[in-house]
Amino acid sequence: MQSCANSWRVVISRSINARAPYRNISNKGDVFKKLQGLNADVSANVRCMGTSQVLWSRKIERILPRHDDFSERHIGPGDKEKREMLNTLGLESVAELIENTVPASIRLGRSLKMDDPVCENEILDSLQKIASRNKMWRSYIGMGYYNCSVPPVIQRNLLENSGWVTQYTPYQPEVSQGRLESLLNYQTMVCDITGMAVANASLLDEGTAAAEAMQLCNSYIGVKTLLKLPHEMDFSGKDVSGVLFQYPDTEGRVEDFTALVDRAHKGCALACCATDLLALCVLRPLSEFGVDIALGSSQRFGVPLCYGGPHAAFFAVKENLVRMMPGRMVGVTRDAAGKEVYRLALQTREQHIRRDKATSNICTAQALLANMASMFALYHGPQGLRHIAERTHNATLILAEGKNVMILNFFFFFFDTLKINCGVAGKDILEKAMQREINLRVYSDGLLGVSLDETVTERDLDDLLWIFGCESSAELIAEKMSERTKGLLASPFKRTSKFLTHPVFNSYHSETNIVRYMKRLENKDISLVHSMIPLPITWREFANIHPFVPLDQAEGYQQLFRQLERDLCEITGYDKISFQPNSGAQGEYAGLAAIKAYLNSKGESHRTVCLIPKSAHGTNPASAQMAGMKVQVVEVDKDGNIDVSHLKAMVDKHKANLAAIMITYPSTNGVFEENVREVCELIHQNGGQVYLDGANMNAQMMGSKGLVHATEVAILNANYMAKRLENHYKILFRGFVAHEFILDVRPFKKSANIEAVDVAKRLQDYESEDKAELDRFCDSLLAIRQEIADIEEGRMDSRVNPLKMAPHSLACITSTTWNRPYSREYAAFPVPFVRPETKFWPTISRIDDIYGDQHLVCTCPPMDVYESPYEERASS
Amino acid sequence: MQSCANSWRVVISRSINARAPYRNISNKGDVFKKLQGLNADVSANVRCMGTSQVLWSRKIERILPRHDDFSERHIGPGDKEKREMLNTLGLESVAELIENTVPASIRLGRSLKMDDPVCENEILDSLQKIASRNKMWRSYIGMGYYNCSVPPVIQRNLLENSGWVTQYTPYQPEVSQGRLESLLNYQTMVCDITGMAVANASLLDEGTAAAEAMQLCNSYIGVKTLLKLPHEMDFSGKDVSGVLFQYPDTEGRVEDFTALVDRAHKGCALACCATDLLALCVLRPLSEFGVDIALGSSQRFGVPLCYGGPHAAFFAVKENLVRMMPGRMVGVTRDAAGKEVYRLALQTREQHIRRDKATSNICTAQALLANMASMFALYHGPQGLRHIAERTHNATLILAEGKNVMILNFFFFFFDTLKINCGVAGKDILEKAMQREINLRVYSDGLLGVSLDETVTERDLDDLLWIFGCESSAELIAEKMSERTKGLLASPFKRTSKFLTHPVFNSYHSETNIVRYMKRLENKDISLVHSMIPLPITWREFANIHPFVPLDQAEGYQQLFRQLERDLCEITGYDKISFQPNSGAQGEYAGLAAIKAYLNSKGESHRTVCLIPKSAHGTNPASAQMAGMKVQVVEVDKDGNIDVSHLKAMVDKHKANLAAIMITYPSTNGVFEENVREVCELIHQNGGQVYLDGANMNAQMMGSKGLVHATEVAILNANYMAKRLENHYKILFRGFVAHEFILDVRPFKKSANIEAVDVAKRLQDYESEDKAELDRFCDSLLAIRQEIADIEEGRMDSRVNPLKMAPHSLACITSTTWNRPYSREYAAFPVPFVRPETKFWPTISRIDDIYGDQHLVCTCPPMDVYESPYEERASS
Repeated sequence: MQSCANSWRVVISRSINARAPYRNISNKGDVFKKLQGLNADVSANVRCMGTSQVLWSRKIERILPRHDDFSERHIGPGDKEKREMLNTLGLESVAELIENTVPASIRLGRSLKMDDPVCENEILDSLQKIASRNKMWRSYIGMGYYNCSVPPVIQRNLLENSGWVTQYTPYQPEVSQGRLESLLNYQTMVCDITGMAVANASLLDEGTAAAEAMQLCNSYIGVKTLLKLPHEMDFSGKDVSGVLFQYPDTEGRVEDFTALVDRAHKGCALACCATDLLALCVLRPLSEFGVDIALGSSQRFGVPLCYGGPHAAFFAVKENLVRMMPGRMVGVTRDAAGKEVYRLALQTREQHIRRDKATSNICTAQALLANMASMFALYHGPQGLRHIAERTHNATLILAEGKNVMILNFFFFFFDTLKINCGVAGKDILEKAMQREINLRVYSDGLLGVSLDETVTERDLDDLLWIFGCESSAELIAEKMSERTKGLLASPFKRTSKFLTHPVFNSYHSETNIVRYMKRLENKDISLVHSMIPLPITWREFANIHPFVPLDQAEGYQQLFRQLERDLCEITGYDKISFQPNSGAQGEYAGLAAIKAYLNSKGESHRTVCLIPKSAHGTNPASAQMAGMKVQVVEVDKDGNIDVSHLKAMVDKHKANLAAIMITYPSTNGVFEENVREVCELIHQNGGQVYLDGANMNAQMMGSKGLVHATEVAILNANYMAKRLENHYKILFRGFVAHEFILDVRPFKKSANIEAVDVAKRLQDYESEDKAELDRFCDSLLAIRQEIADIEEGRMDSRVNPLKMAPHSLACITSTTWNRPYSREYAAFPVPFVRPETKFWPTISRIDDIYGDQHLVCTCPPMDVYESPYEERASS
Repeated sequence: MQSCANSWRVVISRSINARAPYRNISNKGDVFKKLQGLNADVSANVRCMGTSQVLWSRKIERILPRHDDFSERHIGPGDKEKREMLNTLGLESVAELIENTVPASIRLGRSLKMDDPVCENEILDSLQKIASRNKMWRSYIGMGYYNCSVPPVIQRNLLENSGWVTQYTPYQPEVSQGRLESLLNYQTMVCDITGMAVANASLLDEGTAAAEAMQLCNSYIGVKTLLKLPHEMDFSGKDVSGVLFQYPDTEGRVEDFTALVDRAHKGCALACCATDLLALCVLRPLSEFGVDIALGSSQRFGVPLCYGGPHAAFFAVKENLVRMMPGRMVGVTRDAAGKEVYRLALQTREQHIRRDKATSNICTAQALLANMASMFALYHGPQGLRHIAERTHNATLILAEGKNVMILNFFFFFFDTLKINCGVAGKDILEKAMQREINLRVYSDGLLGVSLDETVTERDLDDLLWIFGCESSAELIAEKMSERTKGLLASPFKRTSKFLTHPVFNSYHSETNIVRYMKRLENKDISLVHSMIPLPITWREFANIHPFVPLDQAEGYQQLFRQLERDLCEITGYDKISFQPNSGAQGEYAGLAAIKAYLNSKGESHRTVCLIPKSAHGTNPASAQMAGMKVQVVEVDKDGNIDVSHLKAMVDKHKANLAAIMITYPSTNGVFEENVREVCELIHQNGGQVYLDGANMNAQMMGSKGLVHATEVAILNANYMAKRLENHYKILFRGFVAHEFILDVRPFKKSANIEAVDVAKRLQDYESEDKAELDRFCDSLLAIRQEIADIEEGRMDSRVNPLKMAPHSLACITSTTWNRPYSREYAAFPVPFVRPETKFWPTISRIDDIYGDQHLVCTCPPMDVYESPYEERASS
């Protein structure tokens, strides 16, 4: 259940998720017209469509059929259920529903050219073949990506566990305390290791983090990027808003940036530092240099390479910048019972993304990967992390000692990376590296780089020494190493300050304890504990590939990219696909940036107006703003469609400067825009471009038949639900709906003092394992409507009632004291399918957001908040 | 928490399990003398010992150490905790504890020669290398082992999920309703498909099942096995107790055994039939032939081949044989609240294994694999299973039609197996099979066998046709096939009766639903949700190997066997190890059978007396009985040691016929027998042999250092617990204890009307995620002791109190009505560490065993017991 400012919308998207939880395929997949037919110019997240009927023409396929159909296993209702749903709607067939739902003008008349669906075991076999085309050489390339030992206990219980994998940043804190605690641990880890005051719950990747840092330094528009060496940097003109440097840098050097930071501050510029968490376990933290913003990748804290991502970027700032920090942040607050609890902090700040003053369009985090990194830190603890860092550094020292070639940064301090001038021997060295199946970094000037990591063994070092022509062995070099060669640990850079001193980082070092801790957190959260499709990303052939290996070592990945591109082109009708943006908001920004660049290239750089209908996604305006466009809002009509007459007026007003329109299709109001073709033509006629925002799509795992099936089911579900609820709730934009629709609960404010948030919180009391059934979800909403009627008609108190007091935690229900005008059973088990053995219990009472924002705490609170049962007993 | 007849013993072994749950290593691993030093002759399940100190002698190992030590991660207490525990015991060091615990006479003076411990990632890497030595050819060998498609959703959520993997047959039904329900499904599945009246919850393997069937037909001793063709069988002498035949048989034939069964019954013999569950989905069930006992392997219902096991055997009988059926059986009963619930049925019957009238020593089941097979049936349902069976049969028909060689059983009906006479072409055919990497069955007379299965594709058939010299293709053959070639489906053998009609087999065919169902069951049960060590058995290189492939295709497996044998020989001091017995009881039987055969070979077949101390495992007498020995009981002294004077008297009395003594070491009373060497010498001097029963051991995954560590921790734990409890409970056989000890709760019967079962049930109320800490377990026992004191001293009613009413389910705690002399909080959260968010809730109230045995139901009860919330509401 997701909630946002207008939480009554949420009710619906949760139900659709629950019904067809197929990793965002069926809940968002919609039947719609080939995008190119609409003349959209750019589309970020495309959707799917088509109708196809596969007939088995060969007899052998009848008597020896595939015995398992993947899409049938994944998409909820069977024929019987579909029939019943159609009856409720008074329709004969799904085809008739589609006729009524999707305007003929935007339907595709042919089937998609995609592979037929295959059963799950076939998919796994075929993925295994693809995986085997990746070559697993040892990569010591560095550049922000390092081999690491993924603790199997974390891989299995977190990365491969759908209890953790599903969610996203949590909006309903009462049923998300587990992952909120884990993200708070992440923030604490980042703050402790970097020495910064506050950190967010992660960003998409290190590049995004760096861009956001510079954005934070100034408004994004007009920022010029200048690459300079530190001593060349001139802040005296006070025309520089920020400086970004790296510590240790990409070539391995560890330098003292104190003077640079001082100069920047004197010049009114902020100092941003990209850094490495593992290095900081033995290096002086950034706070000691006065850095304002710290960022980097937390990949090497136990997250597989996976050819470059996804990995969580961390982002931390000084105290004074906290309200400007982009992204999600977890904070501490209290609940209705006064207990210390967690929730997303400063969410009001995020509403900037809806406005044209947006400074960031980031509305998500890499929660799963951040949680992995955080659990890695919990599992190893400060001593374990320091141990890993020292070990990595020692390996680098051995390699440097054994040098038979010129190591450039031997004159500097280094942590894990060497830059080496091999002179004429370079070619031989690369040849020997190939023989041992080892990848090194090759600089454009022929120099070589080696970055070591926690996985390096004595044998690896011997291989590297052999490659570089050293005749000694790692063992002999180690024997000869003296105090002189203690490297960083004997330098002024050696870290003296403690980190990760909080008990949470010092309690879970055994496998039993860490699993128990992960389970405890997992069990506090509602999640879709299913869709346990094995994640091939954890297969070693996918996991252990560095992003900068030669292409011929990544042929498996390349094949996946080609297949995905082919299918996406077929579905969307476009010629080319970019896989770069890794979130919807990033896709918007990339699309608009492409449009802006195109217009500029035609000499039309004055075109900066971006039209955005009210029905568009919330991040649209922020992205337009960041791409240097001026946002103008277009009204929607009573059916939820774009108000074409208003659009025409707006186009007429701005036609000289019209850059683009952004359309979300189908809209977030849940309707298919019948006029979409007309809209596109109008924009094009006036020199603008069309950006079309679609839903996420993972079409690869189902084939065209499965896609159509998923789409039809999503539309059927939504219409069935709307039908069941229409006599009890006001449904906005009624008629047949697409994949979602909106219930209007605003009237209840006046009639019963009930607001959207009360309905959303009360729905938590209705959560059970089986809740995720369409009918049960409708039953819940109807029961809640009855509860509202009880208030409206005076049968229930308007202040103390099951809605206002929701959600009801187990502690509340089982307490001896109970002085409410409704029973314990009614509070906890309001409908028959919510039963003791299947009920999902919120672990806390209703959250107090305002208190938390007023008393901002974004790292782990002192240990007495954590379990100390004996103290509790003493005080109770 | 395991309980048996005298459930007060259980209290302890649960705590040890919890403290060091390392898959039966540390909880059972004990420091003891090299077995051979004791002169034991046979040992079934050996334990480990030794002290070793690994010193890093090379500098590189100091500066580049392994960063993660597997055994440190797995064994509970750190140095600080150990120090505190030793302080409580008043000891200086673990060495001092071992001095006090393990008699010097039986300690090993040197360290074990085993590989050093390695970290988990290294183990996985090395297993990957081993796995790659297995060759994955396609095997169509049959003989009881078939390829199958393991549904990934079941593999991940069940086979690879420690929530399911850990347990064993459940003794505490209130906290095991999930796996009990799943095993009941298994029983129902077996009954439905075979047509038999009752089935057990599985046996160890098909061979065991067959032996148990014949054993059921008569007492095992003296049974002669005669191999005859059906028409040769003569029952007229009424000297035959049973007949075993196979349907379909190993060569593929489907025959009508009605006449044979009739003749057997007339001759007072029982008819036992080994069969195949998949074939029975399209074949007439056994009940229609009048069969008395049905058995077979349920492997091909979604369980990987894994080179031959483990797989669950099924075993089903006619109604009149139910009380003679071996093994565990789940039955339906009611709880204290009158709810219909599950538990192990007819447990009193199992106490036969403790007596010399034992007819079976089976005290376990293949629960995990039975659950896999049962979930496979739920996932596919009757239609899906029939579909798979028809598909398999159709593939076989195509192959038979395309024959270019003589198919012997083409003159019979067949299901999935053909026997082929290729004449002189045999060698060529095998050569071509090798080219395509296909294994066939090769009969000793040069004939070939092919057994197909659900995984066979059109391409596989084309390959087979090519191998057998058929120039047509599967597609062309299929096109030409007429009604004539419908095979079984057009024969009198076609199944006409329905099966798996219960709703449970018709509700979970989508991935979402089956996962939700598995989760619902899992969450009802207490399990050790950790030790998530990836199971290499699910790796395809281990999973997909047929047991009868040529040895050179199984070199990975062979390497594992060799390593395990080497380590076990090192630990035990024996020369050879047999891996055949796959349970402790089977090991006992195998050991005694070996002793008996040895004595017979020396002409001493009159030696049949087996001495068994009272402290021995319960299965010992049953195994001795089955091996044809006469059991004589030896007393133990007050410290729990064998009473040597009584032993001497017994030896003296039986010396002429002395066959063996069975020693459990350390004993189940938790003491190390200091006299064990003396005992062995006494037996040997009198012509007997010594059988030594040890604990299970998975020493492979830790090395010798880890083993010693685990052992020391187990002993430390047990002694620390005994110390904390000794002033509150009477501890039998006090002094320093080994790895377990016994609390005597008998006095409470008189003082407070409290029995062992009340303590065990009340302990369920104390279960929480964190309970599995030594101190918390002790705290629980001390709190319960206080509750008993409250009754003893009149502060609490002796009939209505937290012990007698335990366990308290959530339904009970949250009900509006509460009229007990103690509070809801006290019932549910009796100690501070049992808190709402971590408490484990029993899903039912206390079970009524007697009712269930009096009203025996061992298949799924009618559907109204299952959730039908709307009916429930109507009735409430």
